[in-house]
Amino acid sequence: MRVRIEDPADPRLDDVRDLNHSDNRPDLPGGKGLIVAEGPLVVSRLLASRFPVRTLVGFPSKLDAYLAEHEVPDDVDVYEVSREVLADAAGFDLHRGLLATAVRAPEPTVDDVLAKARTVVVLEGVGDHENIGALFRNAAGMGVDAVLFGNGCADPLYRRSVRVSMGHVLRTPFAHLEGTHTTWQRSLAQLRDAGYRLVSMTPAGEVTLAEALVDEAGAPWGKLALLVGGEGPGLTEHAMRATDARAMIPMAPGTDSLNVATSAAVAFYERDRSLRHRSV
Amino acid sequence: MRVRIEDPADPRLDDVRDLNHSDNRPDLPGGKGLIVAEGPLVVSRLLASRFPVRTLVGFPSKLDAYLAEHEVPDDVDVYEVSREVLADAAGFDLHRGLLATAVRAPEPTVDDVLAKARTVVVLEGVGDHENIGALFRNAAGMGVDAVLFGNGCADPLYRRSVRVSMGHVLRTPFAHLEGTHTTWQRSLAQLRDAGYRLVSMTPAGEVTLAEALVDEAGAPWGKLALLVGGEGPGLTEHAMRATDARAMIPMAPGTDSLNVATSAAVAFYERDRSLRHRSV
Repeated sequence: MRVRIEDPADPRLDDVRDLNHSDNRPDLPGGKGLIVAEGPLVVSRLLASRFPVRTLVGFPSKLDAYLAEHEVPDDVDVYEVSREVLADAAGFDLHRGLLATAVRAPEPTVDDVLAKARTVVVLEGVGDHENIGALFRNAAGMGVDAVLFGNGCADPLYRRSVRVSMGHVLRTPFAHLEGTHTTWQRSLAQLRDAGYRLVSMTPAGEVTLAEALVDEAGAPWGKLALLVGGEGPGLTEHAMRATDARAMIPMAPGTDSLNVATSAAVAFYERDRSLRHRSV
Repeated sequence: MRVRIEDPADPRLDDVRDLNHSDNRPDLPGGKGLIVAEGPLVVSRLLASRFPVRTLVGFPSKLDAYLAEHEVPDDVDVYEVSREVLADAAGFDLHRGLLATAVRAPEPTVDDVLAKARTVVVLEGVGDHENIGALFRNAAGMGVDAVLFGNGCADPLYRRSVRVSMGHVLRTPFAHLEGTHTTWQRSLAQLRDAGYRLVSMTPAGEVTLAEALVDEAGAPWGKLALLVGGEGPGLTEHAMRATDARAMIPMAPGTDSLNVATSAAVAFYERDRSLRHRSV
């Protein structure tokens, strides 16, 4: 039902209150915030996702335009607000004027994720929300089926990750591997048992990326897990030791390694390329 | 000579004053600001570049550490400042505590740039400073020799571009092609005359990137110019019509095109790959 709200202090706006600090919600399960989608594209991806949507909030004109073209389930509260009221509640000016919030649904299990995937990426120590978002955008764009989180990664459902991913964190399945920074690597055995070839991405790789993604006959690995570490430290030795190969993107001398989301994009591209062209 | 400055209003700090608005300097040639390098790595790249360095400014500890390991020419003014004095002059807190400034030297000509290059990237409508910086970082990392600017691009020497590029805008040669948004494309003839194969990057490409970068025998083009357009509109039809091929990065259905610096990185990777592996 669509309701106009004039008072920024109205408790019905609590889902979009103080959005710069909205990820800390001790009142919600897990103590984490709701999922917040901004703009029509990401709002639609949230509505189509596995996450139960609670509210849709927008300027009158933005709501009109959105609702004229999209179905919104009856159990979603729709709140019409002025730009000033929304800015006051959210804590800053949201010029896009359309937001939706959803509850964090439980993650699928690692087994569930692996059962339906051919290519997965495994992240370790990727602590930056923008990099996580960009990684999901690149993964979705180039046909990576799922994302697995090792230790030390940022929250993919944080508002900035959702935005930078263009909503792909809401669509691409992901799950967390258990363990601490020195034990999570053991769960990589689960991937090997499921038939995955494990390839570490590292500037100190022994083979080129193109070589690492095919077998000796030049055929692409049927199932592939690409491991990517955070910018700076990269993958731990412990993680790389649990993989089958260490692959590098060839770099010009005297330059710096690529941004983590960019090097992942190159790896995703090479994976897709190996499946299309079937030769190095 | 190293001088300690205690007064943020001291005119000797004018080169680092009000850095958030430092790109507009009517008193300087061209009306643009100085080049500002932040942090030891980028400061060193500035000192090694073709741009004449004017000042080195830093916290005492940062200057000590830097000068213990690096030569700085005698004609560079070295100013020691406290964190508070620098924050007051610059307009915000610069936690890295080390800055250098340089004069914008004239650009090389397009002919000069082309004479020494095998792979160049040509940008059109890339208006975002971060994307420009990331493009230079990726270009340098994967062996692209030069950057040419068509119409409508952001300033590569703006402070944020310098920072995001990790200083590679100071090392990789670049030049601007002449003309307005409807006439600059004519100067692409200059590239063709110089023997370059011209390839447009576009989601609506007729061939895959891998196919576009080799000839019919599978050999890489000797000289290659990759054209990349700004996020959103992409390349103009006018520009694409002046090229030999329109290449796409294969994308999963229902996803979005990649960020411009990311898709450029993939193209640079494929170019390097074609030169190494010499087959599709």
